[in-house]
Amino acid sequence: MTLVYFFGQGKADGNAQMKAELGGKGANLAEMTTLGLPVPAGFTISTSVCMDFLDRGEVFPSQLITEVNQALEKTEKAMGAKFGDCHSPLLVSVRSGARVSMPGMMDTILNLGLNDEVVEALARKSANPRFAYDSYRRFIQMFANVVKGLESHVLEDALENLKQHRGVVDDTELNAHDLKHLVEDFKEIYLRELGESFPQDPQKQLWAAIGAVFRSWNCNRAKKYREIHNIPNNWGTAVNVCAMVFGNMGESSATGVCFTRDPSTGENVFYGEYLINAQGEDVVAGIRTPKALSSLQAEMPAVYEQLNGVRNILERHYRDVQDIEFTVQENKLWLLQTRNAKRTTQAALRIAVDMVNEGLLNRKDAIRRVKPNELEKLLHPTLDPRAHRQVIAKGLPASPGACSGRVVFDSKDAEMWAARGEPVILVRDETSPEDIGGMHVSKGFLTARGGMTSHAAVVARQMGKCCIAGCGALHIHAKDRFIKIGKLEIFEGDWLTLDGSSGEVMLGKVHTREADLSPEFTTFLSWAKEMGSMNVRANADTPRDARTAREFGAEGIGLCRTEHMFFEETRLPVVREMILSQTNEERARALTKLLPFQRQDFMDILKAMEGFPVTIRLLDPPLHEFLPQTERDVQTLAGQLGMKSEDIRHRVEQLHEANPMLGHRGCRLGISHPEIYEMQVCAVAEATAQLHAEGIAAKPEVMIPLVGHAQELRWLRDRLEKLAVETYKTAMSALNCTVKDESIPFGTMIEVPRAALTANQIAEHADFFSFGTNDLTQTTFGFSRDDSAPFLKVYARENILNDDPFAVVDTEGVGQLIQWAAEKGRSKKPNLKVGVCGEHGGDPRSIEFFNQVGVNYVSCSPYRVPVAILSSAQAALH
Amino acid sequence: MTLVYFFGQGKADGNAQMKAELGGKGANLAEMTTLGLPVPAGFTISTSVCMDFLDRGEVFPSQLITEVNQALEKTEKAMGAKFGDCHSPLLVSVRSGARVSMPGMMDTILNLGLNDEVVEALARKSANPRFAYDSYRRFIQMFANVVKGLESHVLEDALENLKQHRGVVDDTELNAHDLKHLVEDFKEIYLRELGESFPQDPQKQLWAAIGAVFRSWNCNRAKKYREIHNIPNNWGTAVNVCAMVFGNMGESSATGVCFTRDPSTGENVFYGEYLINAQGEDVVAGIRTPKALSSLQAEMPAVYEQLNGVRNILERHYRDVQDIEFTVQENKLWLLQTRNAKRTTQAALRIAVDMVNEGLLNRKDAIRRVKPNELEKLLHPTLDPRAHRQVIAKGLPASPGACSGRVVFDSKDAEMWAARGEPVILVRDETSPEDIGGMHVSKGFLTARGGMTSHAAVVARQMGKCCIAGCGALHIHAKDRFIKIGKLEIFEGDWLTLDGSSGEVMLGKVHTREADLSPEFTTFLSWAKEMGSMNVRANADTPRDARTAREFGAEGIGLCRTEHMFFEETRLPVVREMILSQTNEERARALTKLLPFQRQDFMDILKAMEGFPVTIRLLDPPLHEFLPQTERDVQTLAGQLGMKSEDIRHRVEQLHEANPMLGHRGCRLGISHPEIYEMQVCAVAEATAQLHAEGIAAKPEVMIPLVGHAQELRWLRDRLEKLAVETYKTAMSALNCTVKDESIPFGTMIEVPRAALTANQIAEHADFFSFGTNDLTQTTFGFSRDDSAPFLKVYARENILNDDPFAVVDTEGVGQLIQWAAEKGRSKKPNLKVGVCGEHGGDPRSIEFFNQVGVNYVSCSPYRVPVAILSSAQAALH
Repeated sequence: MTLVYFFGQGKADGNAQMKAELGGKGANLAEMTTLGLPVPAGFTISTSVCMDFLDRGEVFPSQLITEVNQALEKTEKAMGAKFGDCHSPLLVSVRSGARVSMPGMMDTILNLGLNDEVVEALARKSANPRFAYDSYRRFIQMFANVVKGLESHVLEDALENLKQHRGVVDDTELNAHDLKHLVEDFKEIYLRELGESFPQDPQKQLWAAIGAVFRSWNCNRAKKYREIHNIPNNWGTAVNVCAMVFGNMGESSATGVCFTRDPSTGENVFYGEYLINAQGEDVVAGIRTPKALSSLQAEMPAVYEQLNGVRNILERHYRDVQDIEFTVQENKLWLLQTRNAKRTTQAALRIAVDMVNEGLLNRKDAIRRVKPNELEKLLHPTLDPRAHRQVIAKGLPASPGACSGRVVFDSKDAEMWAARGEPVILVRDETSPEDIGGMHVSKGFLTARGGMTSHAAVVARQMGKCCIAGCGALHIHAKDRFIKIGKLEIFEGDWLTLDGSSGEVMLGKVHTREADLSPEFTTFLSWAKEMGSMNVRANADTPRDARTAREFGAEGIGLCRTEHMFFEETRLPVVREMILSQTNEERARALTKLLPFQRQDFMDILKAMEGFPVTIRLLDPPLHEFLPQTERDVQTLAGQLGMKSEDIRHRVEQLHEANPMLGHRGCRLGISHPEIYEMQVCAVAEATAQLHAEGIAAKPEVMIPLVGHAQELRWLRDRLEKLAVETYKTAMSALNCTVKDESIPFGTMIEVPRAALTANQIAEHADFFSFGTNDLTQTTFGFSRDDSAPFLKVYARENILNDDPFAVVDTEGVGQLIQWAAEKGRSKKPNLKVGVCGEHGGDPRSIEFFNQVGVNYVSCSPYRVPVAILSSAQAALH
Repeated sequence: MTLVYFFGQGKADGNAQMKAELGGKGANLAEMTTLGLPVPAGFTISTSVCMDFLDRGEVFPSQLITEVNQALEKTEKAMGAKFGDCHSPLLVSVRSGARVSMPGMMDTILNLGLNDEVVEALARKSANPRFAYDSYRRFIQMFANVVKGLESHVLEDALENLKQHRGVVDDTELNAHDLKHLVEDFKEIYLRELGESFPQDPQKQLWAAIGAVFRSWNCNRAKKYREIHNIPNNWGTAVNVCAMVFGNMGESSATGVCFTRDPSTGENVFYGEYLINAQGEDVVAGIRTPKALSSLQAEMPAVYEQLNGVRNILERHYRDVQDIEFTVQENKLWLLQTRNAKRTTQAALRIAVDMVNEGLLNRKDAIRRVKPNELEKLLHPTLDPRAHRQVIAKGLPASPGACSGRVVFDSKDAEMWAARGEPVILVRDETSPEDIGGMHVSKGFLTARGGMTSHAAVVARQMGKCCIAGCGALHIHAKDRFIKIGKLEIFEGDWLTLDGSSGEVMLGKVHTREADLSPEFTTFLSWAKEMGSMNVRANADTPRDARTAREFGAEGIGLCRTEHMFFEETRLPVVREMILSQTNEERARALTKLLPFQRQDFMDILKAMEGFPVTIRLLDPPLHEFLPQTERDVQTLAGQLGMKSEDIRHRVEQLHEANPMLGHRGCRLGISHPEIYEMQVCAVAEATAQLHAEGIAAKPEVMIPLVGHAQELRWLRDRLEKLAVETYKTAMSALNCTVKDESIPFGTMIEVPRAALTANQIAEHADFFSFGTNDLTQTTFGFSRDDSAPFLKVYARENILNDDPFAVVDTEGVGQLIQWAAEKGRSKKPNLKVGVCGEHGGDPRSIEFFNQVGVNYVSCSPYRVPVAILSSAQAALH
């Protein structure tokens, strides 16, 4: 096995495909060399050596020593210089380079090869003693710190002392003499602090540096970084030893960074920055302001021309925008690195679409290039990046976007303030379905409790509003209408700004920028749609949401929650009347009043989704959710209905549940109170008939929630399907229309484990399955969505669960049930349509899994639809 | 295929094994005939004819007509009489007879074959015209009612009129002349009411009767009975046509019922009743008081001798106690039926044990003979069956036994009254762990809410106390200390009596009888124990429960809930102090105070179970369960701890959960607050060391609750096992003892679906699995145990779920997970010990399933231990 890979003079042992062995930097240096580009010669020690070195107590295998020496010789030959030589010395850089970029996480040593003699040679050769001694003192500093672990301030202090002593401010004001003295001081301090002399032997320097770079793979910040980014610990880093070139050898030298296209807009222009007479680190340090790349054309026309050529070669070669580091040493261009450029989402889209149009990429590759999660950012307002912001707390980034508004503490106040034209932010411990009215008119929500899938978060994403949840620092005194954050007090009407993408809560108004969809967005999405093997639908309960979803590319509604219609101000009293009915007649009367509302709801939403299926889920939440919670509301309702407050309180108490999530809801309610589902099904059938009569292609599907036993579904379907058909036929004939096909598909949610386990039995009564992955996750783990935040935080910290299972589907547990259910269901009914309508339907990693399982469609909140479309396309390409 | 099976003159086409075809009665008549016993000849029409007849629109196949006629001829020959003959007429009975006894559910016709001529022949032949006409009028009544559906009161009224007219009270006072007239009246009424004459042709009578008996299979009461007893609708009934014999032909005739042993005590004595000169129905009617069988020896010594012979033959033949119907016609003994006798549980045990000792049965068969569920009745007091009782409400029979006591409404009052020596019944809407003190001193519990597995029910069964749960008729006004049931008001201190086996609530004191275990019980159980392939352990949290369980045969504790120890009066304030701690030091201090309590608890319980394993489950419930619920309690606690009430309220609010069942509890708590589990594990280790030092074989096992992910268990085990071993070793060396084996097994509950689904991963960190089938049922169905009663009631009514899944394990769904988990777990660890510690561990049908799956042990409440032992034995025999 080869341990060391040489590159130089147009030939390289490695290539760009060998990132696993050579790391990203080493692989690309080899590739550029082979492409004939001017890369300083050097060699890469493979990542496997790193793991071997660390595992075996930091010993270098003898094979390595041999191969390094051979590669070093080749490097000397290529560069026409000799390592440690006193005439034409070769200096090298020793850099880390892992399989994926871990910027700043590991160590680098420059100018290696200098010693008391070589520095003189360098001074002579460059005719620039200041440069030579400056290089030497930098080398000593880096070596002492990186190799020997000397805290960097120790030598830095000596430099500062010298500057004070010489009465100067900048390093650059020190002359060669000063620096020569500084080197002497450094060496003395080195000896004193480390108990040994600074090594003069370049070979010793080299091996010490290689070992130090390997060791830096396991430094704390690198380990932390890998943990965060899920990078395996056993990948290791390569070491790149590369001939030094200097951009700081006078006015004919320079250093810079360039991008083959503008990484922030994606525009196809050559973009970058450089500094004359400087080293790479100076560009980063920001002491001098770099110039725009365009000036290089005037200052160094030949170099610019050559660089522009490199730009074209690399972009065509890599078929992606490149981020290139270059140095010009005495008018000669050297390339030090190339890699795929980081870019904004806007840029990523534009680049992908442009490159397809330019023939550089095919559509599939273009689709692979954009991260699905990034897309959502484009749909929401964002904070003006230049605006001042005073962050006062941080919560969970529960729904993206940014907004400013005035603080209110309850739903009624929100509606009152909004009616006056005030932008409001609803601040609560947690929200509940009762708050729906206030949430509707608020710009955003801020809650002290609850996680990424709390009520506030889910509704916010649904509505495309910004939300910060679980902001524990808030102490909300809702009654007295103020918030306390530490000692800060915020009162009703005060301005706050929320950034739902970062979770930051800011005091006052911060300027935001509206979302603006580019034509590339639409083109890109249309390509993705063609490629995905799963359809994407939206979870939408209102015609407005349905229209938004459709604009974003949704092909139907996978979950229309009818209960949200029950909470609307005009309906809630009737719903309550229905629940509080003493007799069947009273209940029937209340339901008769609700029917026209529901029919209208369904007409509007079916019309908005014309031509696409709309899955209508019958009532799901327990009845107590609709009853008043506060004494004041109880009394108001008593007045409205002419009932005794005591009777209402008694009913509220009677309906109280210890664990409402596992309570009397979903199809359980449908079976114990069949008249409710009957009313809903009639409303669906009548709405459909009305639309069909108008020539509108309404395509409803009826979905029964929370089925766990085939008998539940059989019982309900027996009763409801007949009713739906009869109602539809009656309505059509009343409208003088002929009936072509009166069937309305009936299906079920699969959202408790038992449904998945007995899916073959359930499939006999279902035209489709829709996985309610939220509830399925709750029941499979035994985690209450509303109560799990405190321990999930600990689980993340302790690496017990790496992902929040409510955000990314748990493939090992919940996924097993999904797969089993899909297989079992189809074993009974091969054409069974299988969808997902939980929050996971908008999560890329989950979508990849659903695609594997053979799901037919995913459904997510309207603002996640583009994300889901792209994820589905990528999953299909995978 | 044969449709008709003849029996008579010592030969029969059928036998006792053919119950499916011949029904129980027909099969036993055939068997007795073959045994040479005096059975009137006859024949049985098979059950398959019944289904065929009902399915094909009530047509008799021609083959049937041929076979019936042939069998009838044989019967005539055997009895020396002729059907419809005017000299020596044969009369027959036509009776139903299903595969299992459905007493009184279907129809019977006696004396068939009589008509205006035959009755005269019968009068002549019997020299008893009164007997003949009485038989005729009875036949017309039965025929009109059963075959023609004439309401029975129509003819009964005519009889009453006649009696009034003749000025007599009893039927027996009517003479032959009267009855002859009555027959004429009956025939007239028959014609008038039914529009046709009473059929004189015996053939027509016969076929009409056969059809009517078949039809009665589908009468409403029979259908209802089948539904309740899970009898398939397609079994059908056989029809037995049998020569009539008469016990009412004078002083040399008699009729009676006898049991080969006493069915109420099991004693091996010949037991029964008879009436001279009577028909079978007279014994049932109760007009005359039957005599004890012993008098028959004096009255009819030869017959008695013969009957006693029959007793021995039948009991030896069937190897079970027989319930025999007999008739003596003019000194000749006839047997009309034999079947296995119903018996009390005491009797069943005694009979089984005696029969083994007599060599009649082997032990295995004896074990099969007793229904496990019956055993528990023997362990509890029962109501004196002769005592007067006034039932005022009915709830769920949540825990068996009977008790009387005075009503109290809260736990504190219960303790106060009990301290004065008053027997109390705790009456509450529902109980919570906080009530444990009051529950301890109460005789029984009565709750208005909650199901068979509510807190009250589970604790009651655990403690062996009587409990009625979910008694919806109660309106409990706890504050004002009275109950309203309709218009009845019951106040604190009033006496109530509960029957936990029937769910009946009675006003006042009803006399109860104490439980008294027979020696047969112990013998029987010891046999069962030897046969079962699963061990039986108990769920026990106190040394008292452990001792009870051990007495009942438990071989260890499968679930020792440590939280019950936390609720005790002396500990609760310390537990609260721990929960309310602001700093880690405060918490550590509180835990240090708890440690000695826990250590003592564990010492006591391990000692009580010496030699058997004790599985100690670490803290499971969420912390908020330990905090005060009422404002008064908050203030008391604030005083005790020197805290502000507001701070306590805040913490209570902070810990509040929407769905505590799915909340921050079990191992989630153990991970977020490791110091609690650490304290518990130290207490276990120290207690074990102390006992080992005393030479006591303490065998603790540590069980982690609510694990859903292998990482949870790994994390906790890593931390706790080391601590346990170190603590044990330290304690042993402090006691100057040498350590032989310091290992304490660590295992986990499998109680959420994810644990079952990933059991292979979890098994890597577990020495044992214990299925928590309650919680597993809750999460698999998505049913909250506390909230499911209202809809489970509807589900039972609508046949959606036939069994309460909290009572009988749901093999299709939950069972699939259990099987999967056991298999997956053992695939990783072949010796993994697998147990069940949910309530289902005491249910016979569930135990049968657990046995199939290969579970090693079940654990149940102490009073269910005998039930489980017997169930386990039967499952192994199955």
